[in-house]
Amino acid sequence: MKKVYAGIDLGGTFIKAGLISPGGARISYFKIPTEVESGLNTVRDNLIKAGKRLISISGRKRMKLCGIGIGSPGTVRYPEGIVTDSSPNIPGWVGTSFGGLSADLKIEVRADNDANCMALGEYMFGAGRGTRSGFYITIGTGIGGAFIYNGRLIRGASYAAGEFGHTALKYNGKKCKCGRRGCVEAYTAVPALIQSAKKLAKKHPYSSLRKKLDGLTSHMIFDAFKKGDRAASEAVRLNAAMLGSAVGSVVNLFNPEIVVVGGGLAEAGKKYIDELRKNIIAFAFGSAANSLKIRSARLGNSAGWIGAACLNFDKNNR
Amino acid sequence: MKKVYAGIDLGGTFIKAGLISPGGARISYFKIPTEVESGLNTVRDNLIKAGKRLISISGRKRMKLCGIGIGSPGTVRYPEGIVTDSSPNIPGWVGTSFGGLSADLKIEVRADNDANCMALGEYMFGAGRGTRSGFYITIGTGIGGAFIYNGRLIRGASYAAGEFGHTALKYNGKKCKCGRRGCVEAYTAVPALIQSAKKLAKKHPYSSLRKKLDGLTSHMIFDAFKKGDRAASEAVRLNAAMLGSAVGSVVNLFNPEIVVVGGGLAEAGKKYIDELRKNIIAFAFGSAANSLKIRSARLGNSAGWIGAACLNFDKNNR
Repeated sequence: MKKVYAGIDLGGTFIKAGLISPGGARISYFKIPTEVESGLNTVRDNLIKAGKRLISISGRKRMKLCGIGIGSPGTVRYPEGIVTDSSPNIPGWVGTSFGGLSADLKIEVRADNDANCMALGEYMFGAGRGTRSGFYITIGTGIGGAFIYNGRLIRGASYAAGEFGHTALKYNGKKCKCGRRGCVEAYTAVPALIQSAKKLAKKHPYSSLRKKLDGLTSHMIFDAFKKGDRAASEAVRLNAAMLGSAVGSVVNLFNPEIVVVGGGLAEAGKKYIDELRKNIIAFAFGSAANSLKIRSARLGNSAGWIGAACLNFDKNNR
Repeated sequence: MKKVYAGIDLGGTFIKAGLISPGGARISYFKIPTEVESGLNTVRDNLIKAGKRLISISGRKRMKLCGIGIGSPGTVRYPEGIVTDSSPNIPGWVGTSFGGLSADLKIEVRADNDANCMALGEYMFGAGRGTRSGFYITIGTGIGGAFIYNGRLIRGASYAAGEFGHTALKYNGKKCKCGRRGCVEAYTAVPALIQSAKKLAKKHPYSSLRKKLDGLTSHMIFDAFKKGDRAASEAVRLNAAMLGSAVGSVVNLFNPEIVVVGGGLAEAGKKYIDELRKNIIAFAFGSAANSLKIRSARLGNSAGWIGAACLNFDKNNR
């Protein structure tokens, strides 16, 4: 019987789930609503529903299911699978024990933080394949980060490592949603990019963004950037300069083999990544910069559930 | 025959060397001048001289010498012991291979970066004893850093990890000696503290520092701080606030069990460490901050050679 591994990405809106082979081939995929608004019991029921469906799919395919992995928002104690700190995506989720699902589903269940799972997915079967150490970031409404070193996640002493979005980029600077000042997220996440593009569009009378100020999205900004729009280009360059300093700082600290950029900004394309690379390299030290690879994430929205599935791979792959 | 381990700390001014027992007891210690000004061959000869003396001391004491460890400035490829990037302390040191000393001395020689050795020393027998993961910093004229995770040094993909001094604390800020802008070192190392104390002393007519502006040292500033001098207190508090943000950022990224502060600032005493702790905790996230220990280094100037000696301990201790 062929082995398969199941992964579940528990998001604020959807539960994404699927099966992969030990080599990373995608064998099945589906998504169902998380229904956070219906309460935590519903979320838990939906997780069990997804788990049962994964078990039944692998049964129908006559494959041996080797465990279910779950990527969850918040801080997750590993390998016990207990949520020790909530995330705004699923309020009140703290205290959840994924271990209980193991009994409900009669199969090994492992859970980890969602950013860790995304990093693990990219490391195993995406942009980080073949490397040994990497810094994985996701830039969207918020900013997530995770480290892989010698092929394993660095989870931290209390499983809270990777909060790249809340490192200081500008001491005593702009107020961040988290309450601190000057965080990387306050300056470089998508809302900051949109805000700065709006401001710049008002300065540049010929900017194509001026007509779209109300519903401005990062997609529109990157489209305009590719076409050479001045306001968009300035906003994107400032973003790449600031994010580049921040990532370059982490490169100086941690000296990874690769930096993998995922989330909304990664979809901005090669021109943005080139701009970002230039700024990372400018801030990174010689010996850390020389050998550094900088790549866009490859698995897109699937990185989370694929990485979660990898939690049940052999010990050395975790 | 009792086992001993030898360690050498190769500094810009002195070569410090000694022997420790497997339990960390100091069995012997001496220092000789490095003589950088006489050229690299002299430095190498002095290293061999120190090595031979360590061998002869252990012989006289009828102890079994289990290897010599060397902490060197610059980036050192480990375990091969090749300097891949120089430091200003010993210019031209790049390319040095410590492996050659093994043949000269007829004993196992391992070399690593000096900041890594200091961290290893503090982890094994100093402030970090009993912990599993830590962030070790030294604040003096420059700033060094190193990480221990699961009991082992995180050296980085090209052995260049730990450059905490050159992470951005103020995007596009003050120019740093390294050529970048806004580095932690430019704002929080001893020269920045002295500069800011001088500036503040000019503002505070009753500051005791006003009489000492020419030869002002960090010791004088901390003495005045302990006595409640206003200029000194403001300078120290600003230093602790900025360094606290920077260290808090690393805590959010890496979630260590302990932060160990060494170098000149560590000698400032409890009042300074308390001030620093307050600022680190204010910037660190709940789950990473709650369990965090913050301590002064304990081994002082001996951390380097003691840590270097630990390089030849059992694999798991490296």
